[in-house]
Amino acid sequence: MIGKYEIERVESGIPGFDDLIQGGFPKGTTVLVTGPTGSGKTTFAVQFVYKGAEMYNEPGVIVTLEERAQDLRREMKAFGWDLEEYEKKRMIAIVDGVSAVVGIPSEEPFVLEGNINAEDFLRYIYRVVKSINAKRLVIDSIPSIAFRLREESRIREVLLQLNTILLEIGVTSILTTEAPDPSRGRISKYCVEEYIARGVVLLDFVEKGVELKRYLLIRKMRETKHSMKKYPFEITEEGIVVYPSGEVY
Amino acid sequence: MIGKYEIERVESGIPGFDDLIQGGFPKGTTVLVTGPTGSGKTTFAVQFVYKGAEMYNEPGVIVTLEERAQDLRREMKAFGWDLEEYEKKRMIAIVDGVSAVVGIPSEEPFVLEGNINAEDFLRYIYRVVKSINAKRLVIDSIPSIAFRLREESRIREVLLQLNTILLEIGVTSILTTEAPDPSRGRISKYCVEEYIARGVVLLDFVEKGVELKRYLLIRKMRETKHSMKKYPFEITEEGIVVYPSGEVY
Amino acid sequence: MIGKYEIERVESGIPGFDDLIQGGFPKGTTVLVTGPTGSGKTTFAVQFVYKGAEMYNEPGVIVTLEERAQDLRREMKAFGWDLEEYEKKRMIAIVDGVSAVVGIPSEEPFVLEGNINAEDFLRYIYRVVKSINAKRLVIDSIPSIAFRLREESRIREVLLQLNTILLEIGVTSILTTEAPDPSRGRISKYCVEEYIARGVVLLDFVEKGVELKRYLLIRKMRETKHSMKKYPFEITEEGIVVYPSGEVY
Amino acid sequence: MIGKYEIERVESGIPGFDDLIQGGFPKGTTVLVTGPTGSGKTTFAVQFVYKGAEMYNEPGVIVTLEERAQDLRREMKAFGWDLEEYEKKRMIAIVDGVSAVVGIPSEEPFVLEGNINAEDFLRYIYRVVKSINAKRLVIDSIPSIAFRLREESRIREVLLQLNTILLEIGVTSILTTEAPDPSRGRISKYCVEEYIARGVVLLDFVEKGVELKRYLLIRKMRETKHSMKKYPFEITEEGIVVYPSGEVY
Amino acid sequence: MIGKYEIERVESGIPGFDDLIQGGFPKGTTVLVTGPTGSGKTTFAVQFVYKGAEMYNEPGVIVTLEERAQDLRREMKAFGWDLEEYEKKRMIAIVDGVSAVVGIPSEEPFVLEGNINAEDFLRYIYRVVKSINAKRLVIDSIPSIAFRLREESRIREVLLQLNTILLEIGVTSILTTEAPDPSRGRISKYCVEEYIARGVVLLDFVEKGVELKRYLLIRKMRETKHSMKKYPFEITEEGIVVYPSGEVY
Amino acid sequence: MIGKYEIERVESGIPGFDDLIQGGFPKGTTVLVTGPTGSGKTTFAVQFVYKGAEMYNEPGVIVTLEERAQDLRREMKAFGWDLEEYEKKRMIAIVDGVSAVVGIPSEEPFVLEGNINAEDFLRYIYRVVKSINAKRLVIDSIPSIAFRLREESRIREVLLQLNTILLEIGVTSILTTEAPDPSRGRISKYCVEEYIARGVVLLDFVEKGVELKRYLLIRKMRETKHSMKKYPFEITEEGIVVYPSGEVY
Repeated sequence: MIGKYEIERVESGIPGFDDLIQGGFPKGTTVLVTGPTGSGKTTFAVQFVYKGAEMYNEPGVIVTLEERAQDLRREMKAFGWDLEEYEKKRMIAIVDGVSAVVGIPSEEPFVLEGNINAEDFLRYIYRVVKSINAKRLVIDSIPSIAFRLREESRIREVLLQLNTILLEIGVTSILTTEAPDPSRGRISKYCVEEYIARGVVLLDFVEKGVELKRYLLIRKMRETKHSMKKYPFEITEEGIVVYPSGEVY
Repeated sequence: MIGKYEIERVESGIPGFDDLIQGGFPKGTTVLVTGPTGSGKTTFAVQFVYKGAEMYNEPGVIVTLEERAQDLRREMKAFGWDLEEYEKKRMIAIVDGVSAVVGIPSEEPFVLEGNINAEDFLRYIYRVVKSINAKRLVIDSIPSIAFRLREESRIREVLLQLNTILLEIGVTSILTTEAPDPSRGRISKYCVEEYIARGVVLLDFVEKGVELKRYLLIRKMRETKHSMKKYPFEITEEGIVVYPSGEVY
Repeated sequence: MIGKYEIERVESGIPGFDDLIQGGFPKGTTVLVTGPTGSGKTTFAVQFVYKGAEMYNEPGVIVTLEERAQDLRREMKAFGWDLEEYEKKRMIAIVDGVSAVVGIPSEEPFVLEGNINAEDFLRYIYRVVKSINAKRLVIDSIPSIAFRLREESRIREVLLQLNTILLEIGVTSILTTEAPDPSRGRISKYCVEEYIARGVVLLDFVEKGVELKRYLLIRKMRETKHSMKKYPFEITEEGIVVYPSGEVY
Repeated sequence: MIGKYEIERVESGIPGFDDLIQGGFPKGTTVLVTGPTGSGKTTFAVQFVYKGAEMYNEPGVIVTLEERAQDLRREMKAFGWDLEEYEKKRMIAIVDGVSAVVGIPSEEPFVLEGNINAEDFLRYIYRVVKSINAKRLVIDSIPSIAFRLREESRIREVLLQLNTILLEIGVTSILTTEAPDPSRGRISKYCVEEYIARGVVLLDFVEKGVELKRYLLIRKMRETKHSMKKYPFEITEEGIVVYPSGEVY
Repeated sequence: MIGKYEIERVESGIPGFDDLIQGGFPKGTTVLVTGPTGSGKTTFAVQFVYKGAEMYNEPGVIVTLEERAQDLRREMKAFGWDLEEYEKKRMIAIVDGVSAVVGIPSEEPFVLEGNINAEDFLRYIYRVVKSINAKRLVIDSIPSIAFRLREESRIREVLLQLNTILLEIGVTSILTTEAPDPSRGRISKYCVEEYIARGVVLLDFVEKGVELKRYLLIRKMRETKHSMKKYPFEITEEGIVVYPSGEVY
Repeated sequence: MIGKYEIERVESGIPGFDDLIQGGFPKGTTVLVTGPTGSGKTTFAVQFVYKGAEMYNEPGVIVTLEERAQDLRREMKAFGWDLEEYEKKRMIAIVDGVSAVVGIPSEEPFVLEGNINAEDFLRYIYRVVKSINAKRLVIDSIPSIAFRLREESRIREVLLQLNTILLEIGVTSILTTEAPDPSRGRISKYCVEEYIARGVVLLDFVEKGVELKRYLLIRKMRETKHSMKKYPFEITEEGIVVYPSGEVY
């Protein structure tokens, strides 16, 4: 709640993060998670869905466009997250958006075909979300959508469609994108993503002597009174932890 | 009034802001509100129309090209602003410029069609303004006009037309645009918007240690003696408040 | 006079300015006034023509390509300048270069047609200058010429023609252009204007704490020994005033 | 191991390096080694394969696209590494990707043909890897792949395919790329490589007075808790040595 | 002379300048004079030819491509230089490269035609140089050659031809070009001019508080031992004066 | 020698330089000499060939693509280097790559024809190298190759071919290129040259107060343990001298 109107919140599952945004993301909103390589975007996004299933009993969908579902599953085991367990319970669905493109046969239950356009893509996501009645959705990543759909020139239009349809479905979503150089104002690959999304979370580094320190900054969150500080966070053995009272420098 | 000639002023409805511009915007002027993502452009623009209706009894039109009318209405409730109430009184009209583009049926009273050119767009806005005898107008945003009309190459011409027609109608208008990197002189997406508009208000951030502080700077306001200082502002539970005697640093 | 040769000077009508350039612009020269948005270019240019008529009894022409003649007239009343009064006396002529482009009928005496090429444009200006025997000319602005004539690629050629013809007519002229980022060496939109013009006056801002301070810098003035300092100036209730003994910082 | 899940590690053969990444690269992962010219990328990559054969008895493949196999062999003798010795034992295979392109006949056992597409390239690498049952693979370099396959526009797609197929084969791989300007956020030539790879190691310089000091920074390493510090390293007579307790400045 | 070989020198006619380059330009060399607008390039170049005629009795040719011959003559009178006097004596020839392009009839003795290619241009210059047996030549400016010949893409080739032919003729030449941003390494418009020319003189500004100070830097001078310092210079009532013992800061 | 393997060295003929690279260039290597205009690239390269003939009795070839052979000869006399003397002894051969392009007849023994492709170019160089049994080769410059062959888009391929063929011939070579802005990481014109070459020597300037100081930095030298410091050097009356114990600042 900013003012007089009560807004339903969706807890992120990221320890420390919800304190910064009045208890959670506004329900049904679309949030952009952006940052340079190695900043923890995929971990942030998967944690949102995994913890949603584990802690809040909310089904979630992960659309993975940069690595195969099986590679993602293996990787997430490093945090002790067993995605497969929740997939069996139909609490999590992973859409494999890589196998068909690279021409490797896949035995995944949810596979995006090789040749697909924006409309088919949106329709497929809609179907998977509905099939497990998902409340949470992750698409990793926007540049991979653009590449996948061969639609870089139409990226603004596709994002506007995507954003509107996700709002219509009522699912709370995280989209990831690449931020080539946040300190110079380039916080997204196409310079468009941040204007379309209703929330923007930047994961970045700051140099402190010879060390890079991770920090998180909420650049935008509609319907939410949020802090504008850079908060330190870590990628621990159990995923991302934000320190709302910590100091980056 | 700068000098000998009395200029009619339109109060902005933004607490603290009118003190900076001799009591309000010059009547009938077109003002560009620009800034990076999350800087409060949409809030500033909607507040101008909402407070116009609520406090000054002036009808206003909001053309929303980045989110659907219904999403905007919901979002603004966070500030306690009930747009629908004034829509029923025909004091506010919202033109939904998104639904048709993304292919979702809309029950809105004012809907922009999917395929439309610059002339149709201007004519439609003219009609809606006249239909409620609007004194205030918001178009959010210029990059979405360019995208919507597929007219990026003709953006200078379209803005000149838009600006002239708005002056002709006599409506006081706010147009929003994206400022990729204000500190490096890029205060608009197409590097053109600020030259066409008769007023330019920049909403931006300044880093103070680990925190981003919001500030507002009036870069241009024709027919007005205005300050050139950076004023702090906040997005409070009741919308934007500017602190004319505050310090950004 | 720099050296042994006496050069006829045209007083600018800008208080404080002529002290910086040996008493005035060299007669018949073409001067570029450049700067970012809100820096006072249009005011500087119109003041040159208005004061020319009012104080020095010299007829002048204003070609307005960014706003209609009627909008310019209204705007200038803020400084107490009644352009119409001198138009009636045939001391000032305003060429409306906007109405036809945006498709609004105009009752102006001097109107540029909608479809026009560089040659027609130059010929029309020549005719208007001759019709009131103008000694001063303002064209606001070069980017609007380029846009108006759809000749961005030929801008160097058009400026060379314009500059030479203005020298031939013997009229002292001010052309305005946009300077995206003067502190990084970009003092004109096409990076060409400053080389063609015989004088260049930059109007810009410098940040002093949280405030932007206006300053003026003469970058070039042929046939003139001029200072290379940044002088503070203000846009007062009576137009631009330069402070030759002031300090910007 | 970050958390609860045991990850198999592949020792790098770079003294000091494995301490920074929990004992080695995650088995089967693809790591990008990036940096400006002269930063030691080729040495790092070849050392990984050579030491793999020499110290860990693991066969490895080197695909050399910037110099001929014979030039690489000669060059590596400077470090006392006799590649030929292990080639004879079928512990190392070098794929010569240069001779055919430049039109020089080659007597190498593994030669890439002159005209080849992405699919052929991947298939050939797969065959060579299988032929010696390689556990390690180096491709030097990505820009040369792009150039070799004349596929710069499809580089994202090719890298995604390459990355996925390497994961599928189960070989631990190093790909090199060029980093034009790491201090300004450009850590790869195509701004894509770092997002596709699962690990990113930057080799770079920092100016200390009149001297350039070498440092190594791990920007990303999936499934691995890694330091974010800049570590000094040297190119010694026996190859690269990293100093985990050293100071760059 | 740098070493054992005696090089014939051509005195520049710029007070103070020859001290910096062992007494003058190497005879027959081509020197690029570059700098931003208002830095004094045209004055430097014309002074070289005028003083050549006046002080050293050497005939010279000025090719003026940015303003008409008559405008240049008038302008130079500000320094007390009467070009016409030496034109009558056939000591100076001015080639008017503007009139025909802008379509104004010219009574000049040397006029470049409107439609002309690189070969014609070089041939015409050759003829004029020979007709007065010129020892000095100025072409103002290279960007205007490129524009005049509509050959921007072939600029490297045209400059190479020009440079070689001038060396062949044995005339000592100054070519001017535009330097958009010398402090960022952009010392010429096409980033090519400085590599083709055998000497490069940069005229630029340095900010000292609120004032711009002029300085001159010799970036290159083949066959000459030259200083690499920034020397202050002024544009006085009698032209450019360099202060070899002065301080810029 | 870095380690256990003895590498044959080719002395550069530049006083002070060989101390920085274990006694000389690795025999048969290709070295890029890069820097901005006026940094001494041509002098460095010619000195390598001239001193090779004079001091080490090794024949050498100079391919001059930016000035004619005769202009180069004259210029080098300033250092007391009489190229012709060694040409007569067939110790030095100069390939004139300019005359035919600019259409001036040439009486040089080695002339590149006007229309030539990459293959012809490489073949011609090969023939000249063989004809005098050259051990050293200079090509001045890479951008001129690109321009000469009209092959800018294929520059990577041409350089790879050139580099490999030079290695095959066994000649030790210096190629020059232009470095627009070394301090911002742009150390070559096409951003490719430094990756293809096996050694990179940067000649550049550093500002010390109002003076530019020359320095030399070895960015890369395969098979060589080299310093990474900036060493001062001068262009003296006898050519380039490097000061291995000097300080740039």
